[in-house]
Amino acid sequence: MHPAHTLAPADRLAQTLTRTNTIACVGLDPVLEQLPDVLRTLAPVAAIEAFSRGVVQAIASARVGVVKVQSACYERYGSAGFAAMERTIAASREAGLLVVLDAKRGDIGISASHYAAAASAMGAHWITVSGYLGPSTIEPYLQVGLGVFVLVRTSNPDSDSVQAHTLASGASVAEMMASHVRTLGERFMASEGNGPDRLSSVGAVVGATKPQDGPRLRALMPSTTFLVPGYGAQGGTLADIRGMMRPGSRTAATAGVLVTASRSVIYPKTTPDAAGTWEARVEQAARALVGELAAA
Amino acid sequence: MHPAHTLAPADRLAQTLTRTNTIACVGLDPVLEQLPDVLRTLAPVAAIEAFSRGVVQAIASARVGVVKVQSACYERYGSAGFAAMERTIAASREAGLLVVLDAKRGDIGISASHYAAAASAMGAHWITVSGYLGPSTIEPYLQVGLGVFVLVRTSNPDSDSVQAHTLASGASVAEMMASHVRTLGERFMASEGNGPDRLSSVGAVVGATKPQDGPRLRALMPSTTFLVPGYGAQGGTLADIRGMMRPGSRTAATAGVLVTASRSVIYPKTTPDAAGTWEARVEQAARALVGELAAA
Repeated sequence: MHPAHTLAPADRLAQTLTRTNTIACVGLDPVLEQLPDVLRTLAPVAAIEAFSRGVVQAIASARVGVVKVQSACYERYGSAGFAAMERTIAASREAGLLVVLDAKRGDIGISASHYAAAASAMGAHWITVSGYLGPSTIEPYLQVGLGVFVLVRTSNPDSDSVQAHTLASGASVAEMMASHVRTLGERFMASEGNGPDRLSSVGAVVGATKPQDGPRLRALMPSTTFLVPGYGAQGGTLADIRGMMRPGSRTAATAGVLVTASRSVIYPKTTPDAAGTWEARVEQAARALVGELAAA
Repeated sequence: MHPAHTLAPADRLAQTLTRTNTIACVGLDPVLEQLPDVLRTLAPVAAIEAFSRGVVQAIASARVGVVKVQSACYERYGSAGFAAMERTIAASREAGLLVVLDAKRGDIGISASHYAAAASAMGAHWITVSGYLGPSTIEPYLQVGLGVFVLVRTSNPDSDSVQAHTLASGASVAEMMASHVRTLGERFMASEGNGPDRLSSVGAVVGATKPQDGPRLRALMPSTTFLVPGYGAQGGTLADIRGMMRPGSRTAATAGVLVTASRSVIYPKTTPDAAGTWEARVEQAARALVGELAAA
């Protein structure tokens, strides 16, 4: 077990959000074709890594506390890309960031344990996981001290074709998954915080693009942190975010919502007269995200 | 795109099964603690790789045509393990095996495309994928020429808590996923074979431990190849396998079933007087599996 994991994942997240006082998370999804021109002369993996290190420093300077690292963007380049991901996570930790590994893994028994050990060894604090194989397949991650965001209601348009189906019980498939998150989550609560403020180390991915579902899922998962993609470019609004927050919460650490933005921050639109380095523009975009979300 | 992918994945699989005349697949899930004593003196990644290469040769000698490579067992060792997986897949191809990468990936858009590109670059022919995010998230794999086994009804006991729920329509969650597999699969059919014999490049994972579901899922997915875990040690029987086959099929290539066994083959039980190398015992166990399944 990684030394950082002596703190429960929910406590570690609360500590980070208290320190930075923002519910903003930046998604690090480096895609070669979208990197700043100055990096495009490098070999692919070197470019991805240089970009990742720059983004990590920029968002830490902007006082964002959490980075979501998209595993696919590194695995794309095989073992060399995987090594760049390991170094990116290490650099994120050195910069004081909490790391969510967006790996969407899902497997059983020893395979799940192996994925969990891999994420933990890399230094991730939380990981995204699919629950389609059943809630017990999520436990191996928790057992090594990782926090888990279970895929419940994702932001892509096509997610309705699975997650919006209604069960005979009247719940949707997403709500059924939410019930598992709640039940499992009760066994992995933060050690700190007072009664209703306490959050679980079992979180949920809930997209901001399904606003009608946010409040219902919040009611089903009162002590769960939502990792929320889909804000901004994909259509989610501040009102949608507010609808997912825990009622009465007054601080970033107790709101139970972590809003993740990728493209709008790491590939900020530049104007013809944009000055400064690309890193400065990423930092500015990250500060803008923090500013917007403060209004939520 | 990998050169091998000029052939549709369903055609490639049919070719392999016609040549070997068996529906057996061996799962390569190397776990350090279970390796033969002679390999335990090596460093972890070297041991995993030496074991993998030995198993690949042994099962090719036993005339098994398909190997299922469990990604988690290699990722467990980070980028070094990932590199060993790349070399294992290359060795499998050199030995003439068709490679199913058991990665259970599931993501959207560019991330799914990146996972697909990674699997294709490594030389995998098929990959296991989660459909919880919606069927369109499966298309990127097909678009780069990979065959896909979608998780439909998995063999672990806990899978009921998600997959066995009944929808308002009367179908189970697994059957809803099966409908997506069928619909998507109709767009990615084999180019060879006659009418009812044609299979799709969209397959399904259907465990042998849920025998009551096999025939129903077969009826829902008539042109789908089932990747079937759970045979043998986990409780699945030959009768369960038969219940999943396409009615009237007479050859391995048209049965629509690929039965995967891991532990019983790669860690064969040894008797006190067992002679020969561990590779010879693995080969013997693989031949025994092929023999058993011939009766199906």
